[in-house]
Amino acid sequence: MKSLISELKFLLGDCVSTDTEVLLAHASDKWHASALPDAVVLAQNTQQVATAMKFATKHRIPVTARGAGVGYVGGCVPVHGGIVISTANMQNIIEVNPADGVAVVEAGVLTADLQEACLKQGWFYPPDPASRKESSIGGNIATNAGGPRCLKYGVTRAYVLGLQVVLADGSILNCGGRTHKNKQGFDLVGLFCGSEGMLGIITQATLRIIPAPQARAALHASFPRFSLAAAAVQNILQGGHLPAAIEITDAFTLAAARNHLGPGIFPEDANGHIIVEIDGRADAVDSELSDIETILRQTGATQVVTARTESDVEAIWQLRREFSYCLKATGLTKLNEDIVIPRSALVELVEFCAAMQQETGIPVACFGHSGDGNIHTNIMVLKDSEGKDIRPPADALVNRLFDWVMAHGGSITGEHGIGLAKAPWFAQAVGAEAISVHRALKAALDPQNLLNPGKMGL
Amino acid sequence: MKSLISELKFLLGDCVSTDTEVLLAHASDKWHASALPDAVVLAQNTQQVATAMKFATKHRIPVTARGAGVGYVGGCVPVHGGIVISTANMQNIIEVNPADGVAVVEAGVLTADLQEACLKQGWFYPPDPASRKESSIGGNIATNAGGPRCLKYGVTRAYVLGLQVVLADGSILNCGGRTHKNKQGFDLVGLFCGSEGMLGIITQATLRIIPAPQARAALHASFPRFSLAAAAVQNILQGGHLPAAIEITDAFTLAAARNHLGPGIFPEDANGHIIVEIDGRADAVDSELSDIETILRQTGATQVVTARTESDVEAIWQLRREFSYCLKATGLTKLNEDIVIPRSALVELVEFCAAMQQETGIPVACFGHSGDGNIHTNIMVLKDSEGKDIRPPADALVNRLFDWVMAHGGSITGEHGIGLAKAPWFAQAVGAEAISVHRALKAALDPQNLLNPGKMGL
Repeated sequence: MKSLISELKFLLGDCVSTDTEVLLAHASDKWHASALPDAVVLAQNTQQVATAMKFATKHRIPVTARGAGVGYVGGCVPVHGGIVISTANMQNIIEVNPADGVAVVEAGVLTADLQEACLKQGWFYPPDPASRKESSIGGNIATNAGGPRCLKYGVTRAYVLGLQVVLADGSILNCGGRTHKNKQGFDLVGLFCGSEGMLGIITQATLRIIPAPQARAALHASFPRFSLAAAAVQNILQGGHLPAAIEITDAFTLAAARNHLGPGIFPEDANGHIIVEIDGRADAVDSELSDIETILRQTGATQVVTARTESDVEAIWQLRREFSYCLKATGLTKLNEDIVIPRSALVELVEFCAAMQQETGIPVACFGHSGDGNIHTNIMVLKDSEGKDIRPPADALVNRLFDWVMAHGGSITGEHGIGLAKAPWFAQAVGAEAISVHRALKAALDPQNLLNPGKMGL
Repeated sequence: MKSLISELKFLLGDCVSTDTEVLLAHASDKWHASALPDAVVLAQNTQQVATAMKFATKHRIPVTARGAGVGYVGGCVPVHGGIVISTANMQNIIEVNPADGVAVVEAGVLTADLQEACLKQGWFYPPDPASRKESSIGGNIATNAGGPRCLKYGVTRAYVLGLQVVLADGSILNCGGRTHKNKQGFDLVGLFCGSEGMLGIITQATLRIIPAPQARAALHASFPRFSLAAAAVQNILQGGHLPAAIEITDAFTLAAARNHLGPGIFPEDANGHIIVEIDGRADAVDSELSDIETILRQTGATQVVTARTESDVEAIWQLRREFSYCLKATGLTKLNEDIVIPRSALVELVEFCAAMQQETGIPVACFGHSGDGNIHTNIMVLKDSEGKDIRPPADALVNRLFDWVMAHGGSITGEHGIGLAKAPWFAQAVGAEAISVHRALKAALDPQNLLNPGKMGL
């Protein structure tokens, strides 16, 4: 391998690194798995990605694509060693073009940076993964990232018009384009969205942007029972509202928040909580917020706090972000599973989790994007007397949770992807036919199995 | 073949037909190509589709999937003979479930029927191809159908959560599901959307539905120059509005409308025209319509007609539908090309078409979904002294149009697909790399090339 890496350095120069520090920095993401690559290519442009890929294919070296490296399922961990090709340094926003309704960006552009560039011109790139300030567009596309606003606006896929992708043989594919409709053949753009680096390496994207909504407003509401909060979600939608986001939080998380943030934010008896954000025309937003408040009170909300200014709305979202920190402040490791269930199964899910908790003593905290049934279910790992995580019973609970989700028509991942973390359940989740289609597609586009090998259990 | 068909009849009974009338009824769509199949399977359920497909694969018989048969590119013409498998009789709306935000339908359900079933419960399935009263969900998905409302709501793909697909080997694949987010592996649902019957046969779909907007309103406006109508499109969007639809019409079409519908509908000097539909909260719609009217008048509209009641809005859309009839009333055959261009190139496109018309004497009429640059460009075929179409010069113009579209970053089809009609330009439109990816995918999922062979030039 050493002489091969020298050859790669000769081909690509300074962007190839074998420094221990650099290798370590490219060994893992936010999940626990870790593996050192033999070399890292910090690509500056598509051509360098293509050159590295051609070289890898010629010498049958595994290649793991990497964006900002903040995934949750070990998707960019180079488990077979070889070369990590990072697009993190490709941070050019090539164009924000309202006249065409498109933005063209390199894969390494951070999602929040793109959103800011669009907003400066009064335009809007809606996808909003929680990681948007640290995750890149390339990674967002490779995982088809979601976020709270997907309820109204859809996931990343809905905003990708065109892609530049380096294929396994090192050729450069341009698919889709800069038009808002495109029915030229199969949906190659869609195929690469969410392909987790296993079918090609995304280097550039042409994205659909829309006029920014004039105004937004939000509210948060507390309920004495979780089932009432879940009923409120249904009542809002049945009332003809399609909010940008409806987030829900369960009793365990609220208790953690009370402990961490102090009393007074929620009523003492709050066992369910929702956040609703709406956007649109200024006058509409105002009256819609009132209508939704009425629905919530009729559904049994004991407290409703509305936010009509930008800073008040931000404060409500800050509260939402705190939930994660509050769970961390319990001192327990949390296994954050981004499951999705049909929306009507919300109460059943939380009851199932509460029953598991009661039976095992392991806390299970549920909160997340209730509008589309995407509930982040956090299994809290208890510690032994020496302060070490007791993993086996927590892992067993993850297993039971996934079994329940699959039995109830759900998905074991709505946002994070399969990667390494969900690979053990992948075949059970999608079925034998889907696995064989996955294998056929993988073999068709990557016959030597060099692109991110070892992921999805394929 | 005859004994094979007998065997198929033995397997599937009455749903297999070789009646000449039935064969003829399954030989073509709305395009001019035609070819007789050897047999037609009028499937009643997925199992019958699977049985027919297994049989076809065993005996290497070509299979052409067919929905309602109203495509525009010959996509369901069985050019290699064999078996047509029609899902037109599979018309069950299995479920409309607002609590989960899904509808589950068999492939043969007409799009308008689904929309009506949803509206009865106050819910909404947005995709609205002009053919929605006669085209089926299966066909809509196989072509990833569009429509005017895609500007705000996106194309069919954005509403498909799960699919049941019969694969080339006759196995039944269930992909996606009934959750609104799903990141379980590659986007198989997306791959089958728009695959034009070449990768599998769609038999059932789980679709995303959303709360129906409370109100809608519309307006139509006339401009003395087309360039002002195009400027109005930009000014509306730059003004922060995202209408459900913005339709544009050129001078030639307006003249034909004046001839056919009589004077008084548009000002005599109207050379450009737009229709805008907005929807949302009742009070917002009202004030937004006023704001847009102001923008249009400032952009030079000489007439703006607003519609705030359901019947007035419908009347405006009726006007839009008349445009097609008015062109037909010229007595000329129209070659309707559903090209898409980057939105900013609207004026340039129409000027290019006007120049072609001036040079050749062949009328070119442009109208369509200006918001997303999807302009139906109709090349009107002149007739000789005996009343016969003079095709060669019109065909040459289609060629020139496509060359121009490709040179300007456009797509040669935004809604209809490639099929047979656009196959001659497909490779030029997408490039050699994309073609080889198409071939690889096709070979992976249909190694014997039995599914809709001869389409897309693959």
